[in-house]
Amino acid sequence: MKDKKIPRATAKRLPLYYRYLQYLFSSGKKKVSSADLSDAVKIDSATIRRDFSYFGALGKRGYGYDVEDLLNFFSKQLNQDQLTHVALIGVGHLGRALLNYNFQSQNNIRISAGFDVDEDLVDTIYEGVPIYRIDDLGEQIKAQQFDVAIITVPGEAAQDITDRLVENGIKGIMNFTPIRLTVPENVRAMNVDLSNELQSLIYFVQYSDVITDENE
Amino acid sequence: MKDKKIPRATAKRLPLYYRYLQYLFSSGKKKVSSADLSDAVKIDSATIRRDFSYFGALGKRGYGYDVEDLLNFFSKQLNQDQLTHVALIGVGHLGRALLNYNFQSQNNIRISAGFDVDEDLVDTIYEGVPIYRIDDLGEQIKAQQFDVAIITVPGEAAQDITDRLVENGIKGIMNFTPIRLTVPENVRAMNVDLSNELQSLIYFVQYSDVITDENE
Repeated sequence: MKDKKIPRATAKRLPLYYRYLQYLFSSGKKKVSSADLSDAVKIDSATIRRDFSYFGALGKRGYGYDVEDLLNFFSKQLNQDQLTHVALIGVGHLGRALLNYNFQSQNNIRISAGFDVDEDLVDTIYEGVPIYRIDDLGEQIKAQQFDVAIITVPGEAAQDITDRLVENGIKGIMNFTPIRLTVPENVRAMNVDLSNELQSLIYFVQYSDVITDENE
Repeated sequence: MKDKKIPRATAKRLPLYYRYLQYLFSSGKKKVSSADLSDAVKIDSATIRRDFSYFGALGKRGYGYDVEDLLNFFSKQLNQDQLTHVALIGVGHLGRALLNYNFQSQNNIRISAGFDVDEDLVDTIYEGVPIYRIDDLGEQIKAQQFDVAIITVPGEAAQDITDRLVENGIKGIMNFTPIRLTVPENVRAMNVDLSNELQSLIYFVQYSDVITDENE
């Protein structure tokens, strides 16, 4: 599989498959068809079969997939046997909601450090997570070997923080600010722009008659 | 434009264009090329030109687009001259962060009502927004004529709440729960699955050498 390129869209769907397989496994199911999987994750079964084909022969046509095999495969793909530590920059309302959000229950991910400029927060522990001074960003990223950071800072600070993250070796940034970040090619920025998402949803609802589901 | 179908991907990009045009206009810019727009919003200029073409001739090749014209056009498209009221179901940590999130500063959207089961929250006002008993959902949706709701309830409650929202005429749901909702065809559910998003980002970072940017 290492020689084969995986499309970005396929990679984005893996966690969804993984989660549903966990559910099937825990409820004692042995086999699952692409049609059942399709119903549950709301992705058409042709897409599911194509996605799975990137990872080699995971099942036989007409026999369904073996739940435990699939689960083990995706678990390894997604590195679920190991806890992934993530840094959070910006411990405001949204940052605190993320600290309370249990990433660990579904995926083996934990926000292990928070960073903020607020001196009242610095050197405290919030929901079990230490909050560091933002000036200690570089030092802590190195000490704790973070690869991925979440930023929930005000828009004005977003690019500056990003530059400092990149400088200190961060390779993936989950960006909750409305700013589109400039990052080098080897760093991936993923935008979660809640305001835009909500605006698109409203647009979809208002113009449902003229929007098609086709891509591009 | 009413006769022409707009692709879903194009519709999703409109708020992004709109936001950058607001910025250009407020900084006194009169013209913008698709190349400049492309740089700022990180979408390739061919895609931008194709997106704009769905809305008719918005600019002339080589002359750039008129900022004010474009802004006015998108503002109308996105219904920005009118405040859109949205309901929030679930006033926990994430719900409260969303109540503090200023949707109104960028888009003309306001969360105008919260709903929860917590009797300590019910009948209080949080960040200027009244919190209602979840049993009053139907009544308030009708009274306040909501079309769109955000749900941040626990996963177990998500489908039940969704059914009640749909029953009471909600047409768009922004879903922060990990559950994939079942909705009728005329209702749109948009998933903002933070755990999945973060998991994909980590996967991208770990397998950056085998993931391509091609679609499908």
